Amino acid sequence: MEMDLNAQVKKAGFFQRLKEFPSKLKDGVTKRIKNVQKFGKDDPRRIIHSLKVGLSLTLVSMLYYVRPLYNSFGVSGMWAILTVVVVSEFTVGGTLSKGLNRGFATLIAGALGVGAVHLARFCGDKGEPIVLGIFVFSLGAAATFSRFFPRIKQRYDYGALIFILTFSMVAVSGYRTDEILVMAYQRLSTILIGGTICILVSIFVFPVWAGEDLHKMVANNIIKLANSLEGFEGEYFPSSEKTSKETNSCVQQYKSILTSKSTEDTLANLARWEPGHGRFRLRHPWTKYLKIAGLVRQCAFHFEILNGYVLSDVKIPQDFISKIQEPCSIMSREACEALKAIAKSIKTMKRDSVCVNAHIENSKNAIQNLRIALKTSSPETEKDLLEIIPGVTMASILIEIVNYVEKISEAVEEFSGLAHFKETLDPKVSPELGQHQLLHRGSVKPVLEGDSEEENNSSPHVVINVHDEQPPTTSEKIVSGVQKTRVGVV
Amino acid sequence: MEMDLNAQVKKAGFFQRLKEFPSKLKDGVTKRIKNVQKFGKDDPRRIIHSLKVGLSLTLVSMLYYVRPLYNSFGVSGMWAILTVVVVSEFTVGGTLSKGLNRGFATLIAGALGVGAVHLARFCGDKGEPIVLGIFVFSLGAAATFSRFFPRIKQRYDYGALIFILTFSMVAVSGYRTDEILVMAYQRLSTILIGGTICILVSIFVFPVWAGEDLHKMVANNIIKLANSLEGFEGEYFPSSEKTSKETNSCVQQYKSILTSKSTEDTLANLARWEPGHGRFRLRHPWTKYLKIAGLVRQCAFHFEILNGYVLSDVKIPQDFISKIQEPCSIMSREACEALKAIAKSIKTMKRDSVCVNAHIENSKNAIQNLRIALKTSSPETEKDLLEIIPGVTMASILIEIVNYVEKISEAVEEFSGLAHFKETLDPKVSPELGQHQLLHRGSVKPVLEGDSEEENNSSPHVVINVHDEQPPTTSEKIVSGVQKTRVGVV
Repeated sequence: MEMDLNAQVKKAGFFQRLKEFPSKLKDGVTKRIKNVQKFGKDDPRRIIHSLKVGLSLTLVSMLYYVRPLYNSFGVSGMWAILTVVVVSEFTVGGTLSKGLNRGFATLIAGALGVGAVHLARFCGDKGEPIVLGIFVFSLGAAATFSRFFPRIKQRYDYGALIFILTFSMVAVSGYRTDEILVMAYQRLSTILIGGTICILVSIFVFPVWAGEDLHKMVANNIIKLANSLEGFEGEYFPSSEKTSKETNSCVQQYKSILTSKSTEDTLANLARWEPGHGRFRLRHPWTKYLKIAGLVRQCAFHFEILNGYVLSDVKIPQDFISKIQEPCSIMSREACEALKAIAKSIKTMKRDSVCVNAHIENSKNAIQNLRIALKTSSPETEKDLLEIIPGVTMASILIEIVNYVEKISEAVEEFSGLAHFKETLDPKVSPELGQHQLLHRGSVKPVLEGDSEEENNSSPHVVINVHDEQPPTTSEKIVSGVQKTRVGVV
Repeated sequence: MEMDLNAQVKKAGFFQRLKEFPSKLKDGVTKRIKNVQKFGKDDPRRIIHSLKVGLSLTLVSMLYYVRPLYNSFGVSGMWAILTVVVVSEFTVGGTLSKGLNRGFATLIAGALGVGAVHLARFCGDKGEPIVLGIFVFSLGAAATFSRFFPRIKQRYDYGALIFILTFSMVAVSGYRTDEILVMAYQRLSTILIGGTICILVSIFVFPVWAGEDLHKMVANNIIKLANSLEGFEGEYFPSSEKTSKETNSCVQQYKSILTSKSTEDTLANLARWEPGHGRFRLRHPWTKYLKIAGLVRQCAFHFEILNGYVLSDVKIPQDFISKIQEPCSIMSREACEALKAIAKSIKTMKRDSVCVNAHIENSKNAIQNLRIALKTSSPETEKDLLEIIPGVTMASILIEIVNYVEKISEAVEEFSGLAHFKETLDPKVSPELGQHQLLHRGSVKPVLEGDSEEENNSSPHVVINVHDEQPPTTSEKIVSGVQKTRVGVV
């Protein structure tokens, strides 16, 4: 009886599900479609790239559709199609790298293959396949081995692959056909046609430059650091009006930087294949981006540790927090502003070291204030020391972050010289600079000789010492910034 | 006169260099050759892989050399060569993934291509190329777009590429030839032959398994962490006999872990294509390695910060160092031993949680001792607090590292259940375990129900509290370990 009931319930459930199936299917399909639409909208260049591949394919099909072209190339036209499909990469650098690798590898391997076939023919009917076999085996193995070397792997991996491919194909077919030269010529010319179509479409139809992507990525990573710092400040010293949830999402922004190394390496590698474009000259110092990106990543590691303190529910005594709050807040706010200014300077490709250095200087002064605050908040009881340890650690890591911001600024300063950033001759210091005064010592170190590319600039290197208890005027701060960057009154 | 002298000097230099050229060339060449030899010796599997590719190429050449085979396949044999070159990857997983992707994509695209050609023929002579063009454009663009989706990109990227390739080739050639079915069949069969040769050579001739590489890599990364911890201890508390240079090279070992994510992801992805091999079953939990590797990387981030303190020349007062030295030393030594035991347990695929947990327990007790040491070393003057900040931060990060070691141990414990690690029924606790006593509290928490896969084990969950001032005997410690891992006396 119970079994019967069970079976009935199951049956009813089955029919119910069968009834609901069309609507569920519809829901699923619309959800899928919405996902795809959202994915395309996130980066419309993906849609454009897909259409570009379609366009290249249609263009190369003409080798078949147009009678005179088909008459001259015949079935070899398929090599052109193959080339288009394989060479079409998202970025111009990728397409150029693959196209040039493919072209040159085919040329060299084709010539060697023809030579090998001619050599093998001297060895008689029985010896020919053996000699050819030895050639294919040894050159194939050697080229495969070469692909393991990092320097070849990085730039010529695809070329080595095509070398093996073309050499084997020419050498082996040479055994059966006498028209080997015709075959090699047809393969080479169709590959050139396919490659040229790809490269032209890639460069002239909505190009995606790997170099520009790298440039933007590095600037965005610096902005992410700034946002994380801002979020951290709001989370740890919740004096601002933002809700906790909002800032927490900011704090996490640095996460993607932790593992972005491989993307950066790839982009820098592809960017080197690209011709000059937009604001970037032919010999733009692409590898220097990796240095900046490395420092940014180092800084992000510190955020990972800091984040542990934000998320942990270790309670720090409120009176200790309130003592270090002000200098820590200023430190992170000024470092954040400095990072934003650095990112802006990269994005606009304009030097803005006056503003950056002023912020860094402010933030370093806040470190001094923090030290003083720590001095005066020496724990009274033994228990206190244990309780403030997380706070002390947090402050200590924050200081390290400020140091890294300075390193990033120096690296960008050096880079801006190599990359011919524009000088901002009329430095407008942002209004909020005056808000936080240089409360204590502000000492401007002399600029070291080996520091910059412009050795011929002979401006005097003045050491300005702003002493305690005398907040400097804004003009003094600007001068200090100007001295450091040697932009000029002189 | 001076010019003349200059010219003479230059000339003499030129001849000198010309004279030295042969010996320099010889030196350069021998150096190159030695480099190549060293590179091969570093990982002999590279040489073996190169020979394997040569072998596959020679095998597939038989399609041309052997008359009956050439008669049945003809020029299509080149697709087999192409397949061998493109599909031969270093790991079995890579070869299988590419081979299967290529095979299935060719099958599906070939069928669709033949269908498209038949459909287009209904549209008359003029309509045919237009309809074919529309098909090629839209399917090419759609398949290219699909390659951007992370899930497809990860596993079926190559399949999508081959799909576009085959479909375009079949559809476009269909316009010019009537033997399209023969062409599709020949392409498919030669690709199957090439793919099969590759897969067989890859699996049966000195196979390189991506899964095994991943397994070893994760274990080695844990050992690197342990070495770094050991090196750090020797560097920061230089009581041991090792020279500073030796330990410093150890401290840096964690560096490679910081950026190993992409390699791990790739290996885990390829490992899923591999059949069961050696100690790994078919459905080995490959993705779980990524979880462990992620925790190991998080731990390595902390080393990066710690390393900053080792390298910095901040002087910490000697009396403070000497106070925290002992607990910090024990903490890092025990955490290091725990990491080594975890790595060994992964390498041998045997559970050894008794030993691991005992070490972690010791190291956690050392944290308690450190807290007590910090309590008693409360700074007397204000200046002192400032001076000990780096030391406090260092200790604080060390504590975080111990916490991460525990997390890693838990993740490996969970993993060992899923991966069917062997149980060590007769746990031999390593002799040095007795050296560091559980100086203070040692409390064994009850095992949570949702903690492990073996829910059916109904051993009682005893809470053992070892109280202050009473160092437990070794047997008690073993029991505590046994309770936690539910290995059993019960």
